[in-house]
Amino acid sequence: MIVRDFHKLKNTDKSVSDARWNSVRMLLADDGMGFSFHITTLEAGSEHTFHYKNHFESVYCMSGKGSITDLATGETHEIRPGVMYALNLHDRHTLRAEEELVMACCFNPPVTGTEVHREDGSYAAADET
Amino acid sequence: MIVRDFHKLKNTDKSVSDARWNSVRMLLADDGMGFSFHITTLEAGSEHTFHYKNHFESVYCMSGKGSITDLATGETHEIRPGVMYALNLHDRHTLRAEEELVMACCFNPPVTGTEVHREDGSYAAADET
Repeated sequence: MIVRDFHKLKNTDKSVSDARWNSVRMLLADDGMGFSFHITTLEAGSEHTFHYKNHFESVYCMSGKGSITDLATGETHEIRPGVMYALNLHDRHTLRAEEELVMACCFNPPVTGTEVHREDGSYAAADET
Repeated sequence: MIVRDFHKLKNTDKSVSDARWNSVRMLLADDGMGFSFHITTLEAGSEHTFHYKNHFESVYCMSGKGSITDLATGETHEIRPGVMYALNLHDRHTLRAEEELVMACCFNPPVTGTEVHREDGSYAAADET
């Protein structure tokens, strides 16, 4: 059994930040669960375009307020606590944090922890890195 | 892109209850993500013994207070917001809710939605049902 505490991990190298977001990796590929699990915090007022071509991701809003736009359809959905989106079509999307958003994220295949977002908003597949 | 709202799903057949817990299935096997994602609420004062012999499960505490005992080692860990446990060894365990616990749960392989807990605390593998 693995037991981990977000409040401890956020002060370690399991906490990864980019310009206006932070992601604490609670579970990564080498934990052997077949998915990874992250707590991701997006700064109030920030906007992010991602395109996980090689991963499925689900994102559950625990706190905050914002929106997500599906860039294929142009449709925008409100994000608030209790709303989940799942990128089952590897959907390219723009996420906006009106207030700070705290999100519980699952990735399949699991993130290894060494990925960086590429210019196209994707993470490389494990065998491309 | 799939977008779902916990507050809407909890009044539908995606909300499954047993004696002293409720689980809202935000994502199931047929969503094709390769994992399932549930928001599970355990009643204050309740105790549950589970043994997912056929699944890996991670559980992140969003609110409440309780504990988990690993029945193989006898070790007990405190559960509070920010604590996650992951049953990477299919660990048989007892979960106690001192206060109502609200947990974000990921299962691999994904739950289909038709499983029931068997006497031994497990869910059947998909091909056993």
